[in-house]
Amino acid sequence: MYRLYDYLPSGNGYKVRLTLHYLALPYDVIEVDITRGESRTPAFLARNPNGRIPLLEVPGRGDLVESHAIIAFLAQGTRLIPDDPWDAALMWQWMCFEQYNLEPALGTARFWLKSLGHSAAELGERLIEKHVAARSALAVLEQGLEGRQFLVGERYSLADIALYAYTHVAPEAGIDLTPYPAIRHWIRNIEAEPRWAPITAP
Amino acid sequence: MYRLYDYLPSGNGYKVRLTLHYLALPYDVIEVDITRGESRTPAFLARNPNGRIPLLEVPGRGDLVESHAIIAFLAQGTRLIPDDPWDAALMWQWMCFEQYNLEPALGTARFWLKSLGHSAAELGERLIEKHVAARSALAVLEQGLEGRQFLVGERYSLADIALYAYTHVAPEAGIDLTPYPAIRHWIRNIEAEPRWAPITAP
Repeated sequence: MYRLYDYLPSGNGYKVRLTLHYLALPYDVIEVDITRGESRTPAFLARNPNGRIPLLEVPGRGDLVESHAIIAFLAQGTRLIPDDPWDAALMWQWMCFEQYNLEPALGTARFWLKSLGHSAAELGERLIEKHVAARSALAVLEQGLEGRQFLVGERYSLADIALYAYTHVAPEAGIDLTPYPAIRHWIRNIEAEPRWAPITAP
Repeated sequence: MYRLYDYLPSGNGYKVRLTLHYLALPYDVIEVDITRGESRTPAFLARNPNGRIPLLEVPGRGDLVESHAIIAFLAQGTRLIPDDPWDAALMWQWMCFEQYNLEPALGTARFWLKSLGHSAAELGERLIEKHVAARSALAVLEQGLEGRQFLVGERYSLADIALYAYTHVAPEAGIDLTPYPAIRHWIRNIEAEPRWAPITAP
């Protein structure tokens, strides 16, 4: 059985849990409180020198880190990865965009506000910079979703899981989703998929 | 024939060019000077709303962006992607690490110093923060390369191309590679691969 080392409020961890749920793969969770340095202990660093969750222990193989590498491994050969090579390339295009543009802005702002409990006043200019970057990324996502039900090939894929994870909790990062109707429609589509579970569900 | 929209000093663009060269795929290059806003014109934004190079025009399909999505598309079914699913997962693990931890630190510092021509004195604390993050990422890479010839499965893969692109020009970001012997050995291995070309080669 898979064992997932995870911090339940994490959007990156949630991508892995949503994928495991959707594919009905059994797993257990070991909680790692990243706000208390539990991913930077010598024992954890021996497993991931980068000191981050999620980490998936795969029986007979070893440890895998990086949320997108983990979900691509779990979903190989399933309907969550398009068969068509061009659609698979578009799936990775969106996933790379998430890790480079969306998560560092939206995910970091949310971590500061929600997990570390900082106030907007304390964060000042640093939060404003993250909000500017987050709104740029959300504008690109909104444009990509206009007139569509899902990001790639009009069916649910890892691209939707990867971009949904932090986007749907944008309000926890201080960003209102009202100006993004295509994103709000797509969030409802994802939440109607089988075996969807909320972000902090183990 | 593929057409690549690229800024030749870009490490992200270089990943695509190294892959095209290695696979002996014919292509031409349209240069886009990102320091003069040429990736943010209305015409370019219509093709990539995220306003970034590299962009690969694929005959009969369309435009693909995000360097790692592009190289994975080009290399499908070739020896640059491991057949073994676990090794393929480790390849993506390293590529995700590069986009999240290494490139934003090393790539951004290099862009400020080399492409925009800022001095270390002008950049001050912002450069120091990038150097701290870059050295953390290089320490993880060094540990991953100890006793190895390549990152995954002891053969050249997209993981090597993706991490080499910015790492080998670390000195242009103000980072000396002397403290990283495993990285320096691995750089020599990559530069001995067939059809290797330097970073600014079209």
